[in-house]
Amino acid sequence: MNSENTTPVTVIGLGLMGRALAGAFLRAGHPTTVWNRTAAKADALVAEGARLAPTAGEALAAGPLTVICVTDYQAMYDALGTSEPLLSGRTLINLTSGDSAQAREAARWAEGRGARYLDGAIMAVPPVIGTAEAVILASGPRADFDAHRPALEALGTASYLGTDPGLASLYDVAGLAMMWSVLNAWLQGTALLRTAGVDAATYAPFARQLAAGVADWLPGYAEQIDNGAFPAEVSALETDVRAMAHLIEESEAVGVNTELPKLIKAMADRAIAAGHGGEQYPVLIEEFSKPR
Amino acid sequence: MNSENTTPVTVIGLGLMGRALAGAFLRAGHPTTVWNRTAAKADALVAEGARLAPTAGEALAAGPLTVICVTDYQAMYDALGTSEPLLSGRTLINLTSGDSAQAREAARWAEGRGARYLDGAIMAVPPVIGTAEAVILASGPRADFDAHRPALEALGTASYLGTDPGLASLYDVAGLAMMWSVLNAWLQGTALLRTAGVDAATYAPFARQLAAGVADWLPGYAEQIDNGAFPAEVSALETDVRAMAHLIEESEAVGVNTELPKLIKAMADRAIAAGHGGEQYPVLIEEFSKPR
Repeated sequence: MNSENTTPVTVIGLGLMGRALAGAFLRAGHPTTVWNRTAAKADALVAEGARLAPTAGEALAAGPLTVICVTDYQAMYDALGTSEPLLSGRTLINLTSGDSAQAREAARWAEGRGARYLDGAIMAVPPVIGTAEAVILASGPRADFDAHRPALEALGTASYLGTDPGLASLYDVAGLAMMWSVLNAWLQGTALLRTAGVDAATYAPFARQLAAGVADWLPGYAEQIDNGAFPAEVSALETDVRAMAHLIEESEAVGVNTELPKLIKAMADRAIAAGHGGEQYPVLIEEFSKPR
Repeated sequence: MNSENTTPVTVIGLGLMGRALAGAFLRAGHPTTVWNRTAAKADALVAEGARLAPTAGEALAAGPLTVICVTDYQAMYDALGTSEPLLSGRTLINLTSGDSAQAREAARWAEGRGARYLDGAIMAVPPVIGTAEAVILASGPRADFDAHRPALEALGTASYLGTDPGLASLYDVAGLAMMWSVLNAWLQGTALLRTAGVDAATYAPFARQLAAGVADWLPGYAEQIDNGAFPAEVSALETDVRAMAHLIEESEAVGVNTELPKLIKAMADRAIAAGHGGEQYPVLIEEFSKPR
């Protein structure tokens, strides 16, 4: 265990995730101070060696680094608000769920009180915290991330996204959209195949290979977006929509849900109506980029 | 070139895809007979060595194997209907787009006239036909697939799905749902990140890794579906929906489209309303399996 691994760490907020974070710090050898509005949540951690601070302010004062994981941003202000004078010179890593605007506002609030602030998001469920499988997204000043990377690595795989403190929240929800979309598309396909007696285990490897294959196109398709030009090198939208109609028709014919197929086609139809029928799929970025 | 690679093949239908198929057969050394309602479409193929039959019947009679790729199933019946007596003893591989019910009906029609019938679907665009990247899905009697696999391999990677001739169409549309869903989730994420000045090329590798990572869960999740039991080993739906609400709120806050996020949450909300809040995501198969 090197000296970096023994930086004292404070964890504020001991819900299911906060307890997992504190437990991972303890197991990695960090002297760990904890605080929670309801102190009883700390019992098991104290038994593992954590120190329970009587107030949030004393928890904050216990060391240079405080990790916060509470219900929402307001709960963070409530917990830290009365200890504002203690923020100066300390680093906050806020892993509370919220949106990018809240993260930026919290960064201004903390920096205005002399603290260093990183905003983070946890792409993992509590049981995998402390393993490489848990991805910890972080955004804010690079130097602060670098300084506390060893502590973050006790929680999982730490990934630095950039200076804007709103980035962790944006990448987090973008990633969640991908997760549920892959799952939903797989469920749509599984539902279709089950009408022909194909079980889910038979279809899953096909879906898996296809999702991974399409994922490989993304860097190339990204170039079209960044260049703002969408030549139909592989296929034109007006060809794609005919196959989208087949997906809807087949889903209707076998009696499964059609909402996902219909949303797919609606987005493409709108892009075609906007004059993009001869262009390639990534031109839909224009539809995805505006409210409706 | 072995004898298998020189089985005479007939291609009926010379649209963009049909011409690609005939061209791939020619390049693989198959004596290739072609027919199209508009004969001029055959000119380039004839220059490459194809024989143009004057009628669909004569094309069919030219050899044991006919590959059909026309606009729709009605166009297939129109092309072959007057040559019904010639079908006996021949094999048809129908790569025309259609749904699973049309495929099953066409199989009955062909088999009733003494033909062998495989229904197929092409998961590729015309320019990649003849390369391993082009996936040719096929369903129908296994022996007929095995007998003509070498010819199908001239077109791409041939994948046998099962005896039910409707399977090729079902796998095809299921695969398309996955393809567009990965692309749409990536576009949603790209739109979100661009509001913070992150370009598409910066976000794409993150999206790619995540899609491939989630795809790896599918075989395990499929077991829950096949077992009909959805214990919340990783996360419960009622926890997931809170993150779905964040995705919607963030999309609204930065002014991008919210239709995909809202559909994701609507499906989960419905499963929770049906009493599945304490279960794991694959329980949504019940929502995806019924019309709405």
